Amino acid sequence: MMSVQTESVIYLDHAATSWPKPPEVIQAVVKVMEQDAANPGRGSHQMAVRASRVLFEARKGIAKLFRVNNPNDIAFALNTTMALNMAIKGMVQAGDHIIATAVEHNSVRRPLEYLKRVLSIEVTYLELNAEGALDIKQVEQAIKSNTKMVIVNHSSNLLGSLIDVAAIGEITRRKGVKLLVDAAQTAGMIDIDVEGMGIDLLAFPGHKGLLGPQGTGGLYIHPTVELTPLLHGGTGSQSESVEQPTVRPDRYEAGTQNTPGIAGLHAGIQFVLHETVQKIHTREWILTQRLMEGLQTMNGINILGPALGHPRTGIVSFVIDGADPSETAFILDQHYKIAVRSGFHCSPLAHGTAGTLETGAVRASVGCFSKESEVDALIDAVKEIKQHYS
Amino acid sequence: MMSVQTESVIYLDHAATSWPKPPEVIQAVVKVMEQDAANPGRGSHQMAVRASRVLFEARKGIAKLFRVNNPNDIAFALNTTMALNMAIKGMVQAGDHIIATAVEHNSVRRPLEYLKRVLSIEVTYLELNAEGALDIKQVEQAIKSNTKMVIVNHSSNLLGSLIDVAAIGEITRRKGVKLLVDAAQTAGMIDIDVEGMGIDLLAFPGHKGLLGPQGTGGLYIHPTVELTPLLHGGTGSQSESVEQPTVRPDRYEAGTQNTPGIAGLHAGIQFVLHETVQKIHTREWILTQRLMEGLQTMNGINILGPALGHPRTGIVSFVIDGADPSETAFILDQHYKIAVRSGFHCSPLAHGTAGTLETGAVRASVGCFSKESEVDALIDAVKEIKQHYS
Repeated sequence: MMSVQTESVIYLDHAATSWPKPPEVIQAVVKVMEQDAANPGRGSHQMAVRASRVLFEARKGIAKLFRVNNPNDIAFALNTTMALNMAIKGMVQAGDHIIATAVEHNSVRRPLEYLKRVLSIEVTYLELNAEGALDIKQVEQAIKSNTKMVIVNHSSNLLGSLIDVAAIGEITRRKGVKLLVDAAQTAGMIDIDVEGMGIDLLAFPGHKGLLGPQGTGGLYIHPTVELTPLLHGGTGSQSESVEQPTVRPDRYEAGTQNTPGIAGLHAGIQFVLHETVQKIHTREWILTQRLMEGLQTMNGINILGPALGHPRTGIVSFVIDGADPSETAFILDQHYKIAVRSGFHCSPLAHGTAGTLETGAVRASVGCFSKESEVDALIDAVKEIKQHYS
Repeated sequence: MMSVQTESVIYLDHAATSWPKPPEVIQAVVKVMEQDAANPGRGSHQMAVRASRVLFEARKGIAKLFRVNNPNDIAFALNTTMALNMAIKGMVQAGDHIIATAVEHNSVRRPLEYLKRVLSIEVTYLELNAEGALDIKQVEQAIKSNTKMVIVNHSSNLLGSLIDVAAIGEITRRKGVKLLVDAAQTAGMIDIDVEGMGIDLLAFPGHKGLLGPQGTGGLYIHPTVELTPLLHGGTGSQSESVEQPTVRPDRYEAGTQNTPGIAGLHAGIQFVLHETVQKIHTREWILTQRLMEGLQTMNGINILGPALGHPRTGIVSFVIDGADPSETAFILDQHYKIAVRSGFHCSPLAHGTAGTLETGAVRASVGCFSKESEVDALIDAVKEIKQHYS
């Protein structure tokens, strides 16, 4: 029952959700549902105490991974989008100026555009070059007296390019501006050190590089940062108060948490800590280089993002000259059983950067269990598909 | 692996979270994690299509249960608290008047008190009698020209008393006021018919009466009701737009959903539909009456909520004269392995109604798998504990 069912699918859509999960992730979910799934923190009985412990152990694992001093500075969320909404809507006030980049996901861009409309905030989107590199000098130049926060996508979910967060953190700390990092595509795959990098707020998914189940994620909130909670409600603490408690993590975690999912997330994080982020990244990087080399041997394929040999995450997006990316992805799925993604990946700005705003792109993304043979199968399939367009 | 582990605990804390879950709930979670856990609605490949179907099937099940015409009028959420925040913060504007009751959970009271502070809204909390009954005439009398919404807790999570939602719905429809119902303690246990009862917004948990996993829940939004989304972000639809899409359910479901949890919720709902809400309610009601009779044979026990023979949910809260409820619950847990809950249950207003604001209460709550022998064990235990205080 617990063995991972390896269908004949070649799964290269890890940037959306990692799959398969380590067997111990599923086992942890089942164990909690069978034995510990009382309501954590809301009763004195032993099952509820065990459920509380599940949450705390997961918090400790996340703290270790991101080098957070106090696990209670981490709040769980449904997904990265919720964590980003918690950070952005909890921080931004009327009249604020916010700096973001042109490769932000819609989970950053849409909250900002909404707040522009209702709170008259100002937003500067910093341009990147076509490879997805950001000239850090732009950040300092863009900071004004009313700049509240800089938001950066640690890695574009389209381009796979990386942003030097530590260099930005040095600027924001010096200027007294807050730094929010969207780690949707890097948590568990690229080293993150919140103190060392000067990160005030870190939004992360549970179901991608951390190998946990969907429905998990969270937000690290620096101890000196105070957010208006996105959710007001019961916390099991200070029930008699009409105000949301100030104690963390309760302040930012109203209502019943996803205890089984978080148990799975904990198991995923333990797997990552044991493998090490560095080894996982290296393995993924080597696979992307293999894929890029294979695609580059063919003429007429436009690969987005950083050039061969440069740093990138496990993402390789491309367009076959003359081919509709949606059709390419459809053929890969139906004919070759290769799961990739096409379209705009919720990142229209990044497509503007890459010059693929009209067409979208095909995005292949490897994960920590991906194999060379799977990458080779994609290369061979693209070679065959391409012949129809030559 | 899949059989439910029946520890020797007597679990009477179903109002917090139902346990155990039907085995098919856990099986459904595992199946999705093993086979279908791609990112729904965000790719054309077959695993993603299967994941989308998981969400849609669950939506159909919920629609059947609450007699919703269009399953896309249901949006998933992390928990009932998030659903209530979606409804309240998405609807209420500066200057609005809101009517609620004195038995609202903190998941309603705290958002309202927050909005009072930041948007200068006005809130009227309708008083109930000590048994938890609401005089419906009060609702109509409280409605003013700026009343936007009436919010009612379908059943108090402390008292177990029921509110006549249909009677309130008749008034709110006639007066052009919106009706938000908190079904945390009734979904799957008391019949709910959103059209027949005039409900505009229904917030429900997945992990209580619907027997699904923690981390699930949702909000029904009547087709004529428009909410400002609580979360802005990627939806996999209309990616090129900076605005949240208007199409449902995407508008209210940004980011990756809890696909495995929702698969489990779907299995739980199928279980409930097969058993029928009516049968589950009757079984739970009979158990509460047995418990109340047992407690009433002893002198010096104050049982909260409706009198014997009157309608109530599976909740029976009580206080032993002279005994600290927290201590009672602790002894029940440690010595008798009976899991109940003590304290304020995130409902200080309800304790005001019941006259237990100083002490809190012990809350026992039965579920659809509870047995007469478990209720009898609690009665016997209380009898023994009580002797220490006589």
